[in-house]
Amino acid sequence: MSNIGKVITCKAAITYGPGEPLVIEEIQVEPPQAFEIRVKITHTSLCHTDIHYWDSKDAGPILFPCIFGHEAAGIVESIGELIIDFQVGDHVLPLLVRECMECENCKSRKTNICQNFSTNICLGVMSCDQRTRFSKDGKPIFHFFGTSTFSEYTIIEHGRLVKVDPLAPLDKICLLSCGVSTGLGAAWNTAKVEAGSTVAIFGLGTVGLAVAEGARVAGASKIIGVDLNNEKSGKAKTFGITDFLNPSEYDKPISQVIMEMTGGGVDYSFECVGNTNLMHTAFDSCHKGYGVCVLCGLVTDPAKVFSTHPLSFLGGRSLTGTLFGHFKGVTEIPSLVEKYMHKGFQLDEFVTHELPFSKINEAFHLMLDGKSLRCVLHVGNT
Amino acid sequence: MSNIGKVITCKAAITYGPGEPLVIEEIQVEPPQAFEIRVKITHTSLCHTDIHYWDSKDAGPILFPCIFGHEAAGIVESIGELIIDFQVGDHVLPLLVRECMECENCKSRKTNICQNFSTNICLGVMSCDQRTRFSKDGKPIFHFFGTSTFSEYTIIEHGRLVKVDPLAPLDKICLLSCGVSTGLGAAWNTAKVEAGSTVAIFGLGTVGLAVAEGARVAGASKIIGVDLNNEKSGKAKTFGITDFLNPSEYDKPISQVIMEMTGGGVDYSFECVGNTNLMHTAFDSCHKGYGVCVLCGLVTDPAKVFSTHPLSFLGGRSLTGTLFGHFKGVTEIPSLVEKYMHKGFQLDEFVTHELPFSKINEAFHLMLDGKSLRCVLHVGNT
Repeated sequence: MSNIGKVITCKAAITYGPGEPLVIEEIQVEPPQAFEIRVKITHTSLCHTDIHYWDSKDAGPILFPCIFGHEAAGIVESIGELIIDFQVGDHVLPLLVRECMECENCKSRKTNICQNFSTNICLGVMSCDQRTRFSKDGKPIFHFFGTSTFSEYTIIEHGRLVKVDPLAPLDKICLLSCGVSTGLGAAWNTAKVEAGSTVAIFGLGTVGLAVAEGARVAGASKIIGVDLNNEKSGKAKTFGITDFLNPSEYDKPISQVIMEMTGGGVDYSFECVGNTNLMHTAFDSCHKGYGVCVLCGLVTDPAKVFSTHPLSFLGGRSLTGTLFGHFKGVTEIPSLVEKYMHKGFQLDEFVTHELPFSKINEAFHLMLDGKSLRCVLHVGNT
Repeated sequence: MSNIGKVITCKAAITYGPGEPLVIEEIQVEPPQAFEIRVKITHTSLCHTDIHYWDSKDAGPILFPCIFGHEAAGIVESIGELIIDFQVGDHVLPLLVRECMECENCKSRKTNICQNFSTNICLGVMSCDQRTRFSKDGKPIFHFFGTSTFSEYTIIEHGRLVKVDPLAPLDKICLLSCGVSTGLGAAWNTAKVEAGSTVAIFGLGTVGLAVAEGARVAGASKIIGVDLNNEKSGKAKTFGITDFLNPSEYDKPISQVIMEMTGGGVDYSFECVGNTNLMHTAFDSCHKGYGVCVLCGLVTDPAKVFSTHPLSFLGGRSLTGTLFGHFKGVTEIPSLVEKYMHKGFQLDEFVTHELPFSKINEAFHLMLDGKSLRCVLHVGNT
């Protein structure tokens, strides 16, 4: 029986306060308003950005109770008015970085940062009426990043959802909704790693290893992976890391080790943790004359800064950043999915764990303990 | 009568201590050793880098007495052993940035920073024997940047000298030896300004105006020039500045003014002074999603830093620097001279003053008072 136009009662993982365990409870999900789509989430994975906002009181103006989650895949359940490019049954990925297609940034080939990117992203409500679509016993439950994928059903506004090949496995391509795309894009779109170049990656979580995979596919000749956890070295090889370095095993700065290994620094370095000290190390590890350092990690603490002497840049060294790997979600993720379908890069290998949705707190602990790359949660009964 | 192989006695402008007036005196210039060339300087101009090192006790390990000067033109007087690519009579420009042609950096297309760039650059002596070729009454006079062009004759090592078209006017192309090339190259090689793009330039001295000229030639649609001196606005128009802004005439930060003028920031911003506060302003003025900020100014004070929150880079904004506009001096300056000969850019317009060599202190004051762009000093009797 169709629920189109009706309130749906379903299960969601609710967070009642910063750092508190998630509670799976029944909630009500309203029908989509104009320019909104109601999506049945089939799979959601867990990204460090969820943890970052879940764990930190200072991360942003998150309103609780809240439904986290933004890296996921699902199927369109129903569409609101004025939606003409999605149909019930479409396979879709939610997008952290909106693409409205209409603002100057979206029309520019140079950036993927929609001018409306941050609209309500942390306010916990939908754009059109500043209200939430989630409730429990009549009390509002707030949205997160406009995606809230830790729910069997969610509401996503137009521009934050991309339709993908229905033949692509949702339990794998959910990873292209955020982390893996960020890393691949950092290598391909932001740094533009080319054949024969040298790369250093700081932090070998999913984003870092996706950078490695991107660099491997691009033909980099040396891909140095830096992590304090030696258990990462095995998986690192899978994704093309040629040299694994654990800074705790050296009695000199790891940037100096990399300088010596590469005769003056790598062509491209990537910080994939969100630690300003590590950002300095990554910057210092790239070539003085032409190295490009890409910041992929998220730092929200306003007290943290990146500081360096201007002479560091004089020779032409560059510092830049990336959000979602410079991919324009709506227009470019479908071809990334196709590239995966044609075995253009490794994706399945990032899935280290799979759990039922009910065990979402276990997924949090696997990530917090550094034991998982991606744990895919199977949501609902698909 | 030829002086080949002999010590030459000639006039030079000697500086005996930091910030002290230059004194024109007779000195002795030894013949060139192996891999060295003795050059008769016909014209030398004055660059802010000379002033920076002349004026500041903290700028570097300058040894006094010293002969400053690095932006010049001249004619080969004699060559040392093993020099096969220069002949007596060749027209030449000295190069601040060496190109040895043999190190990995010189072989790389990505950088113009020779690995031997800094060899002895501030030590005041020649590479091969760690001695100076200048003396006065038997006492050593030290070199500066391996060029020391404030002298009728100077010694320059191979790799720091480029042969140019003998038809090109030496009194104009001397400016391509440093400042104008730096600005043009910052626009063309470092930022790669393209047709229709928007540009902001902070500091409208020769380097800043050469950036403007480069951006104008590249077809930039808006070139914003920022300077505290309203007298710069006239010359600014000559070099393509479309909007002149004096920050003292606004009651809000000039970066905000530029953001508003350009709908979110310029494509490319250039700091051309060497002031860290202005570097922050330049960075803040470029587009959050794709702006590139190029640091052209020199900061040698180790206490100065560039600091920003890592989120500033998240959208893809970049910070980089340039030295001699990413030009490889020996291999690329000849074609820049040809481009000038074919009226590919304006150069003569940078020469605001011409003086005999004897009035070099007047040239210093013109620059210190912000009254000159370039004062070309006519050296010797050519």
